[in-house]
Amino acid sequence: MIVRDLAEARKTERLVKSEGWDSTRLLLKSDNVGFSFHITTLYAGGENHFHYKNHYESVYVVSGEGTIEDKATGEVHDLRPGVMYVLDKHDRHIVRPTTEMSVACVFNPPLNGKEVHDETGAYALEGEAI
Amino acid sequence: MIVRDLAEARKTERLVKSEGWDSTRLLLKSDNVGFSFHITTLYAGGENHFHYKNHYESVYVVSGEGTIEDKATGEVHDLRPGVMYVLDKHDRHIVRPTTEMSVACVFNPPLNGKEVHDETGAYALEGEAI
Repeated sequence: MIVRDLAEARKTERLVKSEGWDSTRLLLKSDNVGFSFHITTLYAGGENHFHYKNHYESVYVVSGEGTIEDKATGEVHDLRPGVMYVLDKHDRHIVRPTTEMSVACVFNPPLNGKEVHDETGAYALEGEAI
Repeated sequence: MIVRDLAEARKTERLVKSEGWDSTRLLLKSDNVGFSFHITTLYAGGENHFHYKNHYESVYVVSGEGTIEDKATGEVHDLRPGVMYVLDKHDRHIVRPTTEMSVACVFNPPLNGKEVHDETGAYALEGEAI
């Protein structure tokens, strides 16, 4: 059994910071359960262009509000606590937090740990491990 | 892109109720992303004996407090918002919520939808779909 605490993990290299967000990677490929799990903070006022061409991702909103735009269709969905979105088709999308948001993210295949987005908004299939 | 809302999903057959808990299955095997994602409410005062011999599970505490006991070692960990536990060795365990708890659960392989625990505390590998 693994037990980890977000507050403790944020003091370690599990906390990865980038432009517009930080993400604490609580569960990774090295844990060998076939997915990774991260608690991500999206900063208010950001415009985050993401495109996970190598991964499936689900995102569940724990706190905060914003919107997600599906770039293929232009459709915009409200994000608030209790809403989940899933990039089941490697969808290009834009997340615009209107307040600071805390979201629970699951990736398949799992991340190695140090991934940040490349110039296309993707994570490498095999990123650097922590 | 899939977008689902917990409050809406709780009005549908995605909400599964059992003794000591209910679980809203927001993402399932039929969504084809390789894991399932559920928001589970654990009722205060319960003693939940679980043993996912067919699955890996991660559990992240969104709200509420309680404890988890590892039946193999007798070790007890406090559960509070921000704590995650992971049953990476199909660990037999007991969850004792002291308050109502809301937790975000990920299963690999993904659930089909209608699974409740059998007499051993497990979910069937191929449960009934919703």
